[in-house]
Amino acid sequence: MAKPPKNAISPTRSENYPEWYQQVVKAADLAENSDVRGCMVIKPWGYAIWENIQRKLDVMFKATGHENAYFPLFIPMSFLEKEAEHVEGFAKECAVVTHHRLEPDPDGGLRPAASAELEEPLIVRPTSETIIGATFARWLNSYRDLPILINQWANVVRWELRTRMFLRTTEFLWQEGHTVHATEAEAIEETRLMLDVYAEFAEGTMAMPVIKGEKTEGERFPGAVATYSIEAMMQDRKALQAGTSHFLGQNFAKAQEIKFQDQSGQEVYAWTTSWGVSTRLIGGLIMTHSDDDGLVLPPKLAPAQVVILPIYRDDEQRSEVLQYCESLKADLTAERFDDEPVRVRIDDRDLRGGEKKWQWVKRGVPLRVEVGPRDVAAGKVFVARREIGGKGEPAERNAFVAGVAQLLSECQQTLFDRAFKAREEVTVSIDSLAEFEKYFTPKNADKQELHGGFAYCHFIDGPEMEAKLKELKVTARCVPLDGEEEPGKCIFTGQPSKRRGVFAKAY
Amino acid sequence: MAKPPKNAISPTRSENYPEWYQQVVKAADLAENSDVRGCMVIKPWGYAIWENIQRKLDVMFKATGHENAYFPLFIPMSFLEKEAEHVEGFAKECAVVTHHRLEPDPDGGLRPAASAELEEPLIVRPTSETIIGATFARWLNSYRDLPILINQWANVVRWELRTRMFLRTTEFLWQEGHTVHATEAEAIEETRLMLDVYAEFAEGTMAMPVIKGEKTEGERFPGAVATYSIEAMMQDRKALQAGTSHFLGQNFAKAQEIKFQDQSGQEVYAWTTSWGVSTRLIGGLIMTHSDDDGLVLPPKLAPAQVVILPIYRDDEQRSEVLQYCESLKADLTAERFDDEPVRVRIDDRDLRGGEKKWQWVKRGVPLRVEVGPRDVAAGKVFVARREIGGKGEPAERNAFVAGVAQLLSECQQTLFDRAFKAREEVTVSIDSLAEFEKYFTPKNADKQELHGGFAYCHFIDGPEMEAKLKELKVTARCVPLDGEEEPGKCIFTGQPSKRRGVFAKAY
Repeated sequence: MAKPPKNAISPTRSENYPEWYQQVVKAADLAENSDVRGCMVIKPWGYAIWENIQRKLDVMFKATGHENAYFPLFIPMSFLEKEAEHVEGFAKECAVVTHHRLEPDPDGGLRPAASAELEEPLIVRPTSETIIGATFARWLNSYRDLPILINQWANVVRWELRTRMFLRTTEFLWQEGHTVHATEAEAIEETRLMLDVYAEFAEGTMAMPVIKGEKTEGERFPGAVATYSIEAMMQDRKALQAGTSHFLGQNFAKAQEIKFQDQSGQEVYAWTTSWGVSTRLIGGLIMTHSDDDGLVLPPKLAPAQVVILPIYRDDEQRSEVLQYCESLKADLTAERFDDEPVRVRIDDRDLRGGEKKWQWVKRGVPLRVEVGPRDVAAGKVFVARREIGGKGEPAERNAFVAGVAQLLSECQQTLFDRAFKAREEVTVSIDSLAEFEKYFTPKNADKQELHGGFAYCHFIDGPEMEAKLKELKVTARCVPLDGEEEPGKCIFTGQPSKRRGVFAKAY
Repeated sequence: MAKPPKNAISPTRSENYPEWYQQVVKAADLAENSDVRGCMVIKPWGYAIWENIQRKLDVMFKATGHENAYFPLFIPMSFLEKEAEHVEGFAKECAVVTHHRLEPDPDGGLRPAASAELEEPLIVRPTSETIIGATFARWLNSYRDLPILINQWANVVRWELRTRMFLRTTEFLWQEGHTVHATEAEAIEETRLMLDVYAEFAEGTMAMPVIKGEKTEGERFPGAVATYSIEAMMQDRKALQAGTSHFLGQNFAKAQEIKFQDQSGQEVYAWTTSWGVSTRLIGGLIMTHSDDDGLVLPPKLAPAQVVILPIYRDDEQRSEVLQYCESLKADLTAERFDDEPVRVRIDDRDLRGGEKKWQWVKRGVPLRVEVGPRDVAAGKVFVARREIGGKGEPAERNAFVAGVAQLLSECQQTLFDRAFKAREEVTVSIDSLAEFEKYFTPKNADKQELHGGFAYCHFIDGPEMEAKLKELKVTARCVPLDGEEEPGKCIFTGQPSKRRGVFAKAY
């Protein structure tokens, strides 16, 4: 076997974190830039992770009473105009369809046909509150029709200036939930329920610890009364907003006439919510767990949880080893982990053993199993865990099979515990502005020493805070929901404050 | 229970088939027109059918070695120009993005910002051969990289003038397979394999009999060397093209430089294929099986295979009946049909019994089970099969549970057999032009008497045929692959012909 390089990914995280990220995406075959500015191609290994995310979330959405549906990709321009804050938020970064035909141009190429200009331009959906709201207005007549609990899996487009694969792309894939309720209380309950679903998914399935909280005014979704988010901490001490749930009050209901007859026969406006997570989650997954050898996948989301690498020198050995591997695969697949059969692949490609091994390391497969003729003779296997690294160790074949689900659970737990510990290590409470400034200022910019992570601080939302945050390039992430009231003073203004917010540099 | 109306759908099929179709879509809550011209909203019941189609097909695609991936929604205009026939086929009906920002206009509305005009317009994908081909050109280096077997689930846009829900919409959902092969023979084999997968799905899962065949030149996919399709017969004697598989030869490989080093070290062009089915299948499903009471769903695709309607008069009865229904649901769900747990719903909504029953009839649920206090006392259920209609009949509760998978199989088979018989009844061999003209001319236009269905005829592809077909509004559907060679004469020209093609009016 080839001598492994010092690290499979160059540069390492400490050398250049943003470039390390791009190299992990590449080395793990997750995605690549496309010929269209800001749009990526999601390659099979990356897309399989997204399919697993979708499948797991979809079960949770349906268990909480939601149904999937599909709404148009296009939104008439006039729809955007209806909700004042919403148009502010999205008009500046949207793809606009103006023609419905191309025609030959004089140079032998093509051009939009002037005779096929649309009377009203169409926007490629950046989010679907307006087009779905218009539909709900048609569906809703009486209180008996409520609640309306809908989810859509779709692509959306936001014309971003600076893009980065998975984290911020012009087109991305997501789900958007849209619901309508009879009362304010029910709509708030829904908003919080879906935030809980996201947090449970992030922690339980992605092994990514998150803080649930409410956004400050400046970070609210355009048109929302309140925005809640889950916030995760990446290894470079930057926060990532990983999912949002919005209580829209009656803003969209009033803009779009989403009304119903209540039990007393009176016509009243409904209360709506929306909530979404996107392919951005894959960016968070990468930056939470991966190391200098590439991607590290939590078993619950890994397209393959076990990869089996047969090792042999000649045809005779090959037949014997492969037979052993096939039977091993069959037995492993019969075991269940996270309510599904264990996902196993045999890699018998004609590649050097070292190259093959390192491909799977870089792709983050939780368990790598090597099988050679001696293992066959002894009824053994050689097992390496991706998340703890190292060469691995031999195991009895049958014991390995019987314990595989337990082992995958341990890998999953290790990842969560490690990420949790890493977050706690870069989380502090801060009570003075001087300390705050110091915390977010790298001590030695040349050596790329890092700024701090999460800072819990008393604050009063307002222009003083906004100005200071802008100066330091720090953001208010959220006001944690599990935070307790305590008397304190805003570090920006000295005014009395009852709760701490959490602040961080962020993606 | 309310006296059932004569028919739940008005008009009936014989009164006005196109309008009957729209009314079934509406009555079954499948979809509705949206605020965007030609785009539909797919409602939860319709989308759940699409999810079932996706899940079943996805398993078949993966079993034949394909992986899913995702490519950009947008295609640079210049990409379309590369393949001459392709651009002919799609430039006339595409949505063109020309701006990436809106700005306020003087009237207080919005307009595309002149300063944000794109240097090169982007096309919303009508199909993805060009953008995926460009990606494949990057992925492909050596014969070792082949075959490339990719599928994408996506939305596409074709600016259709006349649209009809599911059958022809501006935006639709589909899957598009795209593959690259080292040899012509392998690419042809792939094209035919996927046609077989489609046919197996149509007949085995949709209970919709199809003819597999090759398209004539005029009906080929723009840029393909050969197009194969599956053709189904609807109840109004019009054919529906339900899926296509294209052998693209080296046309796209040459236009996009999809090349590789072969085993002798020489750089050669690859061979490509593409294949797709869309939400149009749901239109085919409706028009194959439904009746004058609404949708009839084949059990394998029904979002609910069994719906249980509890019937009671007071709270005491309610509690007893519901408990019985819950236990019945649990036992039914433990049974398996088509490799999945039986899908069961209890409908305990506060609606009149007759209204509730007819909702499920119109939505096409295969088995409707009614449970009242007397059934509880006697350990019975009352079961009605949607596909044979009628009132239904009592059954022993436990025997019903034990036999539910078998019963669903019978429903599935009945639908296939009935559709097959209906197709055979409107299928003829025709050997003269006069007979052909008579076959496709309704005898009595006033009474909406129908034209014929499928006609198997000897033909020579050419302008005489095209002119006559255009005049009669008849199309060459395909040259059936299972047809045998036989000497004959083209009915249009009298020239000698070796094979029969199949002709029909079509959607």
